[in-house]
Amino acid sequence: MEKPVIIGVGMVPVGEHWRVSLRDMAVEALLNAMDDAGIDRVDSLYVGNMASGSFIEQENLGALIADWAGLGNIPAIKVEAACGSGGAAVQEGAKAVMSGLEDVVAVVGVEKMTDAWPSDATRYLAYAADAEWELFHGASFVALNALVMRLYMKEYGYTEEDFALFALNAHRNGAKNPYAMFKKEIKLDTVLKSPYVADPIKLFDAAPMCDGAAAVIITSKEKAKELGIPKEKWVELAGFWRATDTINLANRKDFLTLTAAKVAAEKAYRMAGVTARDIDFFEVHDAFTIMAALSLEALGVAEKGKGVMLAKEGQIAIDGDYPIQTMGGLKARGHPVGATGVYQTVEAALQLRGEAPEGIQVPGAEVGLTQNIGGTGSNITVTVLRRV
Amino acid sequence: MEKPVIIGVGMVPVGEHWRVSLRDMAVEALLNAMDDAGIDRVDSLYVGNMASGSFIEQENLGALIADWAGLGNIPAIKVEAACGSGGAAVQEGAKAVMSGLEDVVAVVGVEKMTDAWPSDATRYLAYAADAEWELFHGASFVALNALVMRLYMKEYGYTEEDFALFALNAHRNGAKNPYAMFKKEIKLDTVLKSPYVADPIKLFDAAPMCDGAAAVIITSKEKAKELGIPKEKWVELAGFWRATDTINLANRKDFLTLTAAKVAAEKAYRMAGVTARDIDFFEVHDAFTIMAALSLEALGVAEKGKGVMLAKEGQIAIDGDYPIQTMGGLKARGHPVGATGVYQTVEAALQLRGEAPEGIQVPGAEVGLTQNIGGTGSNITVTVLRRV
Repeated sequence: MEKPVIIGVGMVPVGEHWRVSLRDMAVEALLNAMDDAGIDRVDSLYVGNMASGSFIEQENLGALIADWAGLGNIPAIKVEAACGSGGAAVQEGAKAVMSGLEDVVAVVGVEKMTDAWPSDATRYLAYAADAEWELFHGASFVALNALVMRLYMKEYGYTEEDFALFALNAHRNGAKNPYAMFKKEIKLDTVLKSPYVADPIKLFDAAPMCDGAAAVIITSKEKAKELGIPKEKWVELAGFWRATDTINLANRKDFLTLTAAKVAAEKAYRMAGVTARDIDFFEVHDAFTIMAALSLEALGVAEKGKGVMLAKEGQIAIDGDYPIQTMGGLKARGHPVGATGVYQTVEAALQLRGEAPEGIQVPGAEVGLTQNIGGTGSNITVTVLRRV
Repeated sequence: MEKPVIIGVGMVPVGEHWRVSLRDMAVEALLNAMDDAGIDRVDSLYVGNMASGSFIEQENLGALIADWAGLGNIPAIKVEAACGSGGAAVQEGAKAVMSGLEDVVAVVGVEKMTDAWPSDATRYLAYAADAEWELFHGASFVALNALVMRLYMKEYGYTEEDFALFALNAHRNGAKNPYAMFKKEIKLDTVLKSPYVADPIKLFDAAPMCDGAAAVIITSKEKAKELGIPKEKWVELAGFWRATDTINLANRKDFLTLTAAKVAAEKAYRMAGVTARDIDFFEVHDAFTIMAALSLEALGVAEKGKGVMLAKEGQIAIDGDYPIQTMGGLKARGHPVGATGVYQTVEAALQLRGEAPEGIQVPGAEVGLTQNIGGTGSNITVTVLRRV
């Protein structure tokens, strides 16, 4: 099975972009990626986005972005898997190339969250959960994650301080990433003294509301050669899969296992011919610090109940055995929900091309992983990327 | 290039389903399709849906439907291209099979519109247009289509009565389709005396607000053989493409040409190795009667400005040269927006299997076409289906 390659990446800095609209961000990221690849046309476009209808009263993002980028009458659709939309869009782009129908595919992840009132934005994000069985009772998305964190602490005996280490790591790396929303390191006290959003999740356990767009260009190796893209720029989509779980948290047999991530990782590893040990860094979905811990366990990096230990032992740092959130993760780079999976992909590609900013380049990185979660673990993509 | 086949179809009747939720309709249609194929598992799920976030405050439909249908931890995402979402989802399902990554793929189109207040629903539908450049000025989606109809009438000298013939044809066929929302024939006067929604579009020129779900199962010919699906049930996805155009109607060079449909049809015809003359029936996107006329022109069935003539000459009836809307089309079967493209696909498959209801079976149909529009012609899929 011939695996596709990423030949170009682009982003805009994550932040609160009051004066910029969704289409502007998306087009900028897309043109950056096309520039990076050195191409001036693509065969089709996939847009990863969670909730533009709610946030900015605009659907049909495929047509909108293809149009405003001046790409001609190309096929262009939106892909949605809640906060996992970006990761799913990348996989659809890869599959389009593998289907043989399209040669050069652009994938843009974009979300404009700050145009909505914060209370409305909180509501829109909760649409990732089960409207009839969870939201009806007043649960917010943070509240659902808080239940999981509380149970994890009780079950395995960890403290809020232990989880804070994930946020510290994210900010330490994000401080060196010019595209990160929060470009500064924080102290343990910053996390511990921050207000509760939903006990035990504090402000600094949680990713911010923000705006952003990121893009990648995907093609086959044959076409990459034909286009004359230098091999240093190729990053192989070596293995990828996605999986689902019950959308309603209460229906899970085990609240502390991200089964969808386990299933997706297993298939992605097999397709790539790797194990967790072969992977040099992990861009996991730390929308909340608890999700970083559970993700590391589901990906086979830590045993069940030991995800937090990796942070305590310093193994998640750039120079540790299992670096995570090398560019700041959702916590510090930011989490423009539907764009996040594409940001992760761009960051992984830069790491594998050896082009990460100074201080956060994982030395000699050959294989990287992105993991993007939709809902409370109900829709998860795992993608293994490899230097060619 | 090995083309995939549809091996199972399912639907629920279109209507105002006050007591049924989106998930119930989707699961029922999906299980009907799986029953029809005689299978009890699928490898992945694509959901076509336009605006569940706005209509029912629920995103993440992939996980929701996979979960409630009891399909296990399969990949499942939503595909959005405004009212063209269903057609796009079918094409994504076909591409997933062609990529070699998935063997048996389910596609569900679903929309629950009647839970919203009608005034809100009108607003949500307008998200298919350009929020910043069209909706900002107060244009509704019907108003934009009304401008096109007015121009067509002026340019080519047709009357409102001419367009009404499309509605009559749709209702004549829909009356015989047990899954149609409006199962009754109408008279010319019914259309002409109906109130204006946006002059010159009258109530009976327009598709209704409604709820519905339809599903198809797609696989490769090799796998269909392996599963023991009898060949009478195979319907080949012989050729398909989609294309975009400016999202803002005002930016079109020519308001009266559906360029995206032309581009998509050209590619789909080439892939299928057919011309418009080889096609036995056309399920076109008659959300408004004007769109039926423009679609027939873009598909190469009629010359520019002559789409309406096909209706006047009776050629669009079941026994005409170019039957359209054989099961009632969007006007009479109904238009649950994101589900429509999948309904069209199901109907085309039934025609090609010779299983259309009595009176609306196109005799000896070998090749059929579906065309599904998102926005005011900004995102259009064309799919050619063939009896194997």
